[in-house]
Amino acid sequence: MNLQNDLILRAAKGEDIERYPVWLMRQAGRILPEYRAVRSKLSGFKELVETPEFAAEVTIQPVDILGVDAAIIFSDILVVPEAMNVPYEMLEAKGPWFNHTIKSEEDAKRVETDFDVEDRLSYVMEAIKLTVKELNGRVPVIGFAGAPWTILCYMVEGHGSKTFSEARKLLWTNPSLAHQLLQGITDVTIRYLKAQVKAGASMIQVFDSWAGILGTEQYATFSTPYLKQIADAITDVPVTLFSKGAITSIPAIAALDCNTVGLDWNMDVETVRAQIGNSRTLQGNLDPCALYGSHATVESETIKMLNSFGQNKRHIVNLGHGVYPDVDPEKVKTFIKTVKSYEIN
Amino acid sequence: MNLQNDLILRAAKGEDIERYPVWLMRQAGRILPEYRAVRSKLSGFKELVETPEFAAEVTIQPVDILGVDAAIIFSDILVVPEAMNVPYEMLEAKGPWFNHTIKSEEDAKRVETDFDVEDRLSYVMEAIKLTVKELNGRVPVIGFAGAPWTILCYMVEGHGSKTFSEARKLLWTNPSLAHQLLQGITDVTIRYLKAQVKAGASMIQVFDSWAGILGTEQYATFSTPYLKQIADAITDVPVTLFSKGAITSIPAIAALDCNTVGLDWNMDVETVRAQIGNSRTLQGNLDPCALYGSHATVESETIKMLNSFGQNKRHIVNLGHGVYPDVDPEKVKTFIKTVKSYEIN
Repeated sequence: MNLQNDLILRAAKGEDIERYPVWLMRQAGRILPEYRAVRSKLSGFKELVETPEFAAEVTIQPVDILGVDAAIIFSDILVVPEAMNVPYEMLEAKGPWFNHTIKSEEDAKRVETDFDVEDRLSYVMEAIKLTVKELNGRVPVIGFAGAPWTILCYMVEGHGSKTFSEARKLLWTNPSLAHQLLQGITDVTIRYLKAQVKAGASMIQVFDSWAGILGTEQYATFSTPYLKQIADAITDVPVTLFSKGAITSIPAIAALDCNTVGLDWNMDVETVRAQIGNSRTLQGNLDPCALYGSHATVESETIKMLNSFGQNKRHIVNLGHGVYPDVDPEKVKTFIKTVKSYEIN
Repeated sequence: MNLQNDLILRAAKGEDIERYPVWLMRQAGRILPEYRAVRSKLSGFKELVETPEFAAEVTIQPVDILGVDAAIIFSDILVVPEAMNVPYEMLEAKGPWFNHTIKSEEDAKRVETDFDVEDRLSYVMEAIKLTVKELNGRVPVIGFAGAPWTILCYMVEGHGSKTFSEARKLLWTNPSLAHQLLQGITDVTIRYLKAQVKAGASMIQVFDSWAGILGTEQYATFSTPYLKQIADAITDVPVTLFSKGAITSIPAIAALDCNTVGLDWNMDVETVRAQIGNSRTLQGNLDPCALYGSHATVESETIKMLNSFGQNKRHIVNLGHGVYPDVDPEKVKTFIKTVKSYEIN
């Protein structure tokens, strides 16, 4: 595959770039009317995730409409527990919902880890192949998975939560079961990410969305070792680790064999750069709410973030969290235009 | 009032102490069967909050049953917006719910700030007076309020949220309205806290529960200036500021005229101490989930936390968040016993 725009890959690898690459987490999604048009024809979110033609279509939309430098495959981190025989539903009002949760050794018996990921999650690989074919080298495709800790959160808690206290309880009441489950999720996730690369993903991002609810020591015990296994296993394409909210664990994340560390909007770029040096690319981290401001505000806040990079070329521009669904796409365009016209030496 | 146990006040003021004082956020609540017995006789949470006899009864329960070094008045931070004519309901499954939210200048017209707080929130002051009388000097009573930013979150969003993106949107779309509302909440909160002190509260805590969703710069713009006004206004009793999740803003909080800075379980005691020096007391910060561990784990984790204080006497022991409702009260007793038997020089 000859890529016409490999800017994001060069930035991830620390190679020379002529401008900062830019994409948005959740760029393929409810923010775009074109996405909502596809979505409204279907029975629900899961039909969209599980139908490669539709998933590929909405994956490509932001490349065409917004002009981002990468496409991220439209999917959900919860396809992994589902493949492991812990299925979820996506409820309109409540978000993800698991009818079976995994809280005990008995519950854990239903969890499957020894299966053919390429077969069981074939719809994801098909969607990647279709996307790569359709994009025809315009931009790279990013594959992704949830971090084992974040997946465990959902498997134990069964739904979203502000504290995930059920999941955190398991770490204290039965740490060996927690480690057993985390290892199983890690094994499946590595096979899953390798399959995504084989299908055509040129870059991988691991989302540890609930990193921030663990203290530093517990994060080092129950998340970082599994992220390390993943980072060590994915060798053919650049890897981004995004541990949302884990400010105190950033140096430990950056010490893993990854290319890029994702920052949320509460993390200070200059502080992190001083902590980790220049061997990793940083991704982020505009406050997603800044896109609710006027066009002038979006522009000035984006420039402020870009200035904080200090002309260091190891940066990929993104928000500090997924774009919120009610943001005006025109504001996103202003964000992207501002990044693209920012000069670096 | 002659206090037989003024340990927590001495720790807050940096005076000499013979052991570390200990209490738990949410110690008066669902964790205790005795609380649930009172609660089950009533129509709901709000009847308990609004009936001074019952509120005083459950406030005192943890003093009798758990042996904590302070009572915190049983109430809710949302009584303040309710007094400001933005009433809430407490739904069993969903938590707080506001039928009217404040998102626009038009909505803001209903917000009242010019009223007699002692009259409109008389039930809180009555509950404090009854508690003080009944405790008869055994331990101090802590009064509290939500920080203006956290109250604004609920007034705008109308309910709990993982991101409070509606509230954060207001900061970008209409910052002057946000500041106007924050100033109104601050004015009412200062009068409310002064009334609590007049009624007998010996210490005040301000809870900024949603501090962690703002970046450092926005926190400095939309929260710290209002916390400063409160800290400056409350001069007769020690003030604790607890900005949950605001790791990067801790030095700014500690620079305010407060006695004590609350730490959540993600904050590292030694790091914070190094940042802020010895002019403030630190409160916290055991992971509330540690109480799900065995008695031996509770003891060893508590001792580990106590060791991190390095024999510095400016510490009040607490969890890093409110105690979770399904924790075994016997584990809480082990936590408290461990603190009380820990020797300091």
